[in-house]
Amino acid sequence: MSGEVMVSTESILQAATPAAWVDAAVEGWRELLVDHANCEKKAASTALALIFAYPEDTQLGLALSRLAREELRHFEQVQGAMTELGVPFTRQKPGRYAAGLRSAMRTSEPGRKLDLLLTGALIEARSCERFRLLAGRLQAPLGRFYARLAESEARHFELYVELARVRAAHEWEARLRVLAEREAQLATAVDGELRFHSGPPPG
Amino acid sequence: MSGEVMVSTESILQAATPAAWVDAAVEGWRELLVDHANCEKKAASTALALIFAYPEDTQLGLALSRLAREELRHFEQVQGAMTELGVPFTRQKPGRYAAGLRSAMRTSEPGRKLDLLLTGALIEARSCERFRLLAGRLQAPLGRFYARLAESEARHFELYVELARVRAAHEWEARLRVLAEREAQLATAVDGELRFHSGPPPG
Repeated sequence: MSGEVMVSTESILQAATPAAWVDAAVEGWRELLVDHANCEKKAASTALALIFAYPEDTQLGLALSRLAREELRHFEQVQGAMTELGVPFTRQKPGRYAAGLRSAMRTSEPGRKLDLLLTGALIEARSCERFRLLAGRLQAPLGRFYARLAESEARHFELYVELARVRAAHEWEARLRVLAEREAQLATAVDGELRFHSGPPPG
Repeated sequence: MSGEVMVSTESILQAATPAAWVDAAVEGWRELLVDHANCEKKAASTALALIFAYPEDTQLGLALSRLAREELRHFEQVQGAMTELGVPFTRQKPGRYAAGLRSAMRTSEPGRKLDLLLTGALIEARSCERFRLLAGRLQAPLGRFYARLAESEARHFELYVELARVRAAHEWEARLRVLAEREAQLATAVDGELRFHSGPPPG
């Protein structure tokens, strides 16, 4: 990808993560780690779904295959961290974030493809923001691990934005603002579940 | 994984690939390369589906995440070969192989998990056999590429067999024979489509 993207992760997120989420996440780091493993799998699976949906777009296929490999490596690292820190796997109720974003996306082409790419960019941007926030609050080894992941997520964010920009030069910015508004609501409104992309806890 | 598996790819396949398939594949190498790219994506996606289905089996998750990464790297290499050899992407009708295998698999647990692992082993074993056959018949760079892939597929086959053996020590061999019988039919009966896992052409 070219280095032409000038948008930063912060500039596309329409609201910062509330301090109450960060406090809850630091307190509930074990629960969060289990959800984090799941998020890395889902990130790989989302990239793979895009590769399957647009097989004639070979540049997209190549870029997202590399991204999926990196997400899978992160998944393996999170599993390693769980073992190291004695955090067992538990089944968790899904959060509202992915379904909430999906409900804002267009379902027919060519809008669907653009929305999938922009939603990918938003999820990576939010992940990057939250890894940075947590990196400063959590002890090693988790703090260091999250700082490294923040850098990867920033690159993934740039990749998704670049894929969107090249494929919809005139529409991507306006559409990104629409989807970012929904994303900001989901990340900041009070939420009953603690998840990596949830809102702050009640009370 | 331990090195205890003594089964070779050849010993579990109940029928060798017919010479007529090899001749057709050498002749139709371009069509086959497009299907091959698709097979690598599907192999990654199948591994990922297993990781999602059995999240509490962390050893399986770790091993199949690594396998999925390798399949994705192969997908990128096949796309690179297509570009190098001037083979454009074309949409292809799906072959009968995957659906045919699926129809022989059990759909309720714990049989489903064992059948998914054994089917994975059979697909990798057949891929390995066919890459070896084609490596000796195709010119460089494709011949060399397929020879390297045959080695990877042999390792993947061993991994799937080992995962199955450890999880179902008393049942896996008998069940493998049942599934291998179906696989051998699909790989050897006359087939209207030329695919990486198809049967030989009519006539």
